[in-house]
Amino acid sequence: MAQRYKMTLAYDGTRYAGWQVQPGEKTVQGELEFALEELTGESPRVQGSGRTDAGVHARAQVVHFELLGPKDPGRLTLGLNAVLDRDIRVDKVRRASASFDARRSATGKQYRYLIWNGPIVPPNLRLYRTHVSRPLDLDAMKESAGMLLGTNDFSAFTANPNRHVPSTCRTLRRMEVRGNGKEVTLIAESEGFLYKMVRSLAGFLIRVGRGEVSSVETEEILKSKTRTARVPTAPPEGLWLWNVFYSKRIRLPAVNR
Amino acid sequence: MAQRYKMTLAYDGTRYAGWQVQPGEKTVQGELEFALEELTGESPRVQGSGRTDAGVHARAQVVHFELLGPKDPGRLTLGLNAVLDRDIRVDKVRRASASFDARRSATGKQYRYLIWNGPIVPPNLRLYRTHVSRPLDLDAMKESAGMLLGTNDFSAFTANPNRHVPSTCRTLRRMEVRGNGKEVTLIAESEGFLYKMVRSLAGFLIRVGRGEVSSVETEEILKSKTRTARVPTAPPEGLWLWNVFYSKRIRLPAVNR
Repeated sequence: MAQRYKMTLAYDGTRYAGWQVQPGEKTVQGELEFALEELTGESPRVQGSGRTDAGVHARAQVVHFELLGPKDPGRLTLGLNAVLDRDIRVDKVRRASASFDARRSATGKQYRYLIWNGPIVPPNLRLYRTHVSRPLDLDAMKESAGMLLGTNDFSAFTANPNRHVPSTCRTLRRMEVRGNGKEVTLIAESEGFLYKMVRSLAGFLIRVGRGEVSSVETEEILKSKTRTARVPTAPPEGLWLWNVFYSKRIRLPAVNR
Repeated sequence: MAQRYKMTLAYDGTRYAGWQVQPGEKTVQGELEFALEELTGESPRVQGSGRTDAGVHARAQVVHFELLGPKDPGRLTLGLNAVLDRDIRVDKVRRASASFDARRSATGKQYRYLIWNGPIVPPNLRLYRTHVSRPLDLDAMKESAGMLLGTNDFSAFTANPNRHVPSTCRTLRRMEVRGNGKEVTLIAESEGFLYKMVRSLAGFLIRVGRGEVSSVETEEILKSKTRTARVPTAPPEGLWLWNVFYSKRIRLPAVNR
């Protein structure tokens, strides 16, 4: 009988054409499926909690997959890390119930958008931060973030509002702006995000921080439900899938883990 | 008349065959000289405070060079950063007196050796930390570091003790082991280091931390003045040139900076 597994992993998205398998492209999902096949002889589909775009990183992506042959989770972790390139690292594999679904069972996700706000980016951070050289007005950004918080129609903050989505309403349960020296961190948490929503929020907040858009325009832009030049898509390298949340109920009792 | 400049820069050593110009190889010194030539039309030699090996990083390398045509230091910084790849970043250029020499005027240098001590290295740190998966015994490493501190003949901690060096005695004025979660940092500071000395110290301290060599053997190894298998050369990716120190006297008065 098939056994389902829940796996947590981190990746550096620099070398990948994003999460999702695409013909002729190197993708994170593709690399994981290839490694599982090499390790087990089976060809399971690896289902992620969601896609990430090319160049976007994950601190803790969560996936599920099924294997027919019994495998020890600890050995799977070691085996996958031996087969995978070092820019994808498996943090943990555990057995999951057949009802666990990395995407559908998730109760929320946290993304962080990391900005280096100084004249030069330290070379070792150049692929993991978005560079904004002039000082950002964090107070204006915080004010704007406060207006984005909560339930809104985020049509003005998605890259392709014409896609067939049942609703463009989402609830941002966290939208924070934090400054620590030259590091500026945007934290966005929601049960679900629209396509390129976090990079749109980041692109907008950076414009506010630069003084190019006033924070008071935030509500007006939300109400307009229309994407305009005031909301650019921020570059991928600053974006990190930071955490995926699940309710405790979906896990197996401790004795079966 | 020629004007001398002091420049501070950071680099990610991953893509370079080290600091020093070598025919047919991409080096940091070579890139800087190329960029200066592109920018000024002159071909100055760039003299560093010291060499770094292939794969070794610098948080703050210091160099000097001379230009005939007058240049504004701020514009030189911007111009160089525009020409150079993003894995080399110029932090600051200032005018220096003709007697300033990045190597000879230095009163000391600090290197840090950064270790990731956990089962997996976060993908974004893989090129900037040395990976040691099993928990290191920091107390043993600190004990050993304490014995290395001070003035010693470091023949047992250099890669090639047969080179013509006037003396193999050096004074480690700092030799610290710091732990912070999974980050372990070795800090070595001295007026001067022997060839591959820091990586040898790191290789030895890691062996002590793993329990493969006892910290009490430290003094015996120093006294032996002989390089043995107990002192391996730790990999380059964990090594960072952290700081170069100069006495204030060599600087120009504030009005001329």
